[in-house]
Amino acid sequence: MSSDEADAFVTSTDPLHPANLIPELCGGFYRLGWVTGTGGGICIRVGDKVYIAPSGVQKERIEPSHIFVLPYPQSTSSPHTDRIFLRRPKLNLKESACTPLFWNAFDKRNAGSCIHTHSQNAVMATLLWEGDFFEISHQMIKGVRIGGNGPPMSYLDTLRVPIIPNTPFEEDLTESMAAAMDKYPEAAAVLVRRHGIYVWGDDWQKAKTQTECLDYLFEIGVKMKLAGIPTVLNN
Amino acid sequence: MSSDEADAFVTSTDPLHPANLIPELCGGFYRLGWVTGTGGGICIRVGDKVYIAPSGVQKERIEPSHIFVLPYPQSTSSPHTDRIFLRRPKLNLKESACTPLFWNAFDKRNAGSCIHTHSQNAVMATLLWEGDFFEISHQMIKGVRIGGNGPPMSYLDTLRVPIIPNTPFEEDLTESMAAAMDKYPEAAAVLVRRHGIYVWGDDWQKAKTQTECLDYLFEIGVKMKLAGIPTVLNN
Amino acid sequence: MSSDEADAFVTSTDPLHPANLIPELCGGFYRLGWVTGTGGGICIRVGDKVYIAPSGVQKERIEPSHIFVLPYPQSTSSPHTDRIFLRRPKLNLKESACTPLFWNAFDKRNAGSCIHTHSQNAVMATLLWEGDFFEISHQMIKGVRIGGNGPPMSYLDTLRVPIIPNTPFEEDLTESMAAAMDKYPEAAAVLVRRHGIYVWGDDWQKAKTQTECLDYLFEIGVKMKLAGIPTVLNN
Amino acid sequence: MSSDEADAFVTSTDPLHPANLIPELCGGFYRLGWVTGTGGGICIRVGDKVYIAPSGVQKERIEPSHIFVLPYPQSTSSPHTDRIFLRRPKLNLKESACTPLFWNAFDKRNAGSCIHTHSQNAVMATLLWEGDFFEISHQMIKGVRIGGNGPPMSYLDTLRVPIIPNTPFEEDLTESMAAAMDKYPEAAAVLVRRHGIYVWGDDWQKAKTQTECLDYLFEIGVKMKLAGIPTVLNN
Repeated sequence: MSSDEADAFVTSTDPLHPANLIPELCGGFYRLGWVTGTGGGICIRVGDKVYIAPSGVQKERIEPSHIFVLPYPQSTSSPHTDRIFLRRPKLNLKESACTPLFWNAFDKRNAGSCIHTHSQNAVMATLLWEGDFFEISHQMIKGVRIGGNGPPMSYLDTLRVPIIPNTPFEEDLTESMAAAMDKYPEAAAVLVRRHGIYVWGDDWQKAKTQTECLDYLFEIGVKMKLAGIPTVLNN
Repeated sequence: MSSDEADAFVTSTDPLHPANLIPELCGGFYRLGWVTGTGGGICIRVGDKVYIAPSGVQKERIEPSHIFVLPYPQSTSSPHTDRIFLRRPKLNLKESACTPLFWNAFDKRNAGSCIHTHSQNAVMATLLWEGDFFEISHQMIKGVRIGGNGPPMSYLDTLRVPIIPNTPFEEDLTESMAAAMDKYPEAAAVLVRRHGIYVWGDDWQKAKTQTECLDYLFEIGVKMKLAGIPTVLNN
Repeated sequence: MSSDEADAFVTSTDPLHPANLIPELCGGFYRLGWVTGTGGGICIRVGDKVYIAPSGVQKERIEPSHIFVLPYPQSTSSPHTDRIFLRRPKLNLKESACTPLFWNAFDKRNAGSCIHTHSQNAVMATLLWEGDFFEISHQMIKGVRIGGNGPPMSYLDTLRVPIIPNTPFEEDLTESMAAAMDKYPEAAAVLVRRHGIYVWGDDWQKAKTQTECLDYLFEIGVKMKLAGIPTVLNN
Repeated sequence: MSSDEADAFVTSTDPLHPANLIPELCGGFYRLGWVTGTGGGICIRVGDKVYIAPSGVQKERIEPSHIFVLPYPQSTSSPHTDRIFLRRPKLNLKESACTPLFWNAFDKRNAGSCIHTHSQNAVMATLLWEGDFFEISHQMIKGVRIGGNGPPMSYLDTLRVPIIPNTPFEEDLTESMAAAMDKYPEAAAVLVRRHGIYVWGDDWQKAKTQTECLDYLFEIGVKMKLAGIPTVLNN
């Protein structure tokens, strides 16, 4: 494929085109404090194409021309180490280190989008909940879907978000994230202790609104815990 | 009525037209953290028309074409289940689940606007005040009106905001919100425990400024409570 | 004077004209949480003209046409009750209730601008410092000037901001604010317990930067107090 | 050199030209609460030219014409007191009082940019860590480079940021900052107790992302300390 043909994948006047949306959404995430200092990001999958931001760059300054496009599924058996691209930026950029983690969300939940943040609320939740999961009930959890892609949860449900240990390299979380998704099929996200969170959804809207909803729940949960208020009520 | 005639209800170049104001105000509420993750919203009533945002969508991305228009009053005896519309969006949207709660404000206080937020300050207030109401005195409560539509309160008054229990479905709050409004005729708003708040006013300006004022009071009240400072002084 | 002549006082293409600056600055103060719910504001005096925002309106939505212009000094002996105007908005607006308090800053410190906020940091400071003043040393107080219009303070100085009791009506603070300014001639501002703060400066830039500086000091001071760290060091 | 020739140093249509970047970045730092009340700022060095903002002005309102340009290195032996300029603003402005501290970063770490903030997170860190340095491990420290210009740190490393005592005048920090940089060659920044922080990097992007990363770590570190959670784990 020629370079011009490849650039067409990220060139559109439609503000809702993934190559335009990713920069805009990352700007919003920056203002929320979710992706400061090059951390975090979002990927969007539309059918057989995956749009991914570069690694290690200021997320609020991404441009459409920085976006990587990959085919989905990957025809290689190890997309982790041997990825195929439809389009790479001309600059000396590397695709997001979260790529194999985003792939977990595609493969295991048929997600259309996955968001990774370093939100302080998420990290504080992983510090104050020392077990295998964060949990809360009787809050506005109805914005979260069972498994991230199922029906909405109810106010009366108990939301559990599994917490996995962090590793020095992002890609080394791939297997433990997958294992947590298998062990907690109702979970809409996976927290990484002392690091952040991965949240997915059927499309970018659902991924984004669930990320906001979960972040809200971590924030209120942390406040409750510090104020000595239990976060789970016995039904 | 033709579809074009109906669309005229939400088409205006006036930035203060309700169909333009609702998206703009919701954008501001999003930046305040009041309506993240599709929660919350605002409705505006001008005379015999009510403008309402859709349910379950990103509130900071609403467009005028997404707005529902309903006649007021409703000629049906059960607007809760059997609503009449002057205009519905062409998209597959549902009107805000808060509709019957907004109607309480119209029917009981002749409100011109009602705002619903999931503000963390409001929710924390409902967790730290375990009784039937939040209360505070000797703060800047003069921005709140008696009953939400009466004369301004005084610095020396004690502001009480009733707290009702939450329910899994928004519409199931209709009766308990109405009962709280009857029981506390001086209240300018109703808090919903572990959920958020409904605030009304004669028009959108008064609803908005009272929501800001109350949110400010919940924020300072929560800080005072956590610091061991009483929020009500004996006069 | 004709209405058109009066309107010329608030009509300018210069973004630094007081009638343009006041709306812009109030928008910034709104985003800082200083003037939500119609509270707070700023006035600017340039030579013999004073520009004042209206009372009881949304401060982030003021327009140049809403601005009042008053001569300075007032030829009446009681500007509190019997004010002379060069220009009044055509709308049914009243000048800011802070007007006599702003006048204190003009009369006693020859100020060119005075800012009033309801900042939560300022209010918390008045709650945690129960005496007649807030005090802090060994912080970035060098952005504050002695008396608000004198030379900059030093890092080694102890900043004291007097606290006066609140009253139900803003104008009833006039005399106690004046008395505090007389008693604390080195103070750059006056705190009003359970209400907010008045800060002045030679011009709007100095009033604004001193307000920011003081708000920063209240914020860090409150955090220190709550963490058990003394805010004043013995030299 | 004529005044017009000098002005050419700060005149460019390229948004990434240092004279355009500094105002834009300072606006962002203002919104983050890092440079309120005229404090803080950023300098950028490109090859043999250093771009510096003025002292004592509102950092969110700087314009390209306010920028100073200095040659690097300075041909004088005491750039602290006897500076050479390529371009000075026509207004009555003084270059940032941080100039000799920025110079430390150029001379000792070959930095291309240095940022100074008064962030509350940084100041709280200097109050809660009473020794010679702040330290944290097992957090997202991989956005920080060893020495500020070396390879990225690892999640398993312990980040230490030296803390020096403050002085009434910014320039009097020059020697103690230099000494801390010598004593802690792996440090990416120097904290100033009760004042703020200096952070450097190879270019403005790296200085900015490291400042964000460090501020994030101070914020989470302060929260952990106040919640009784140790910030350094034994490996």
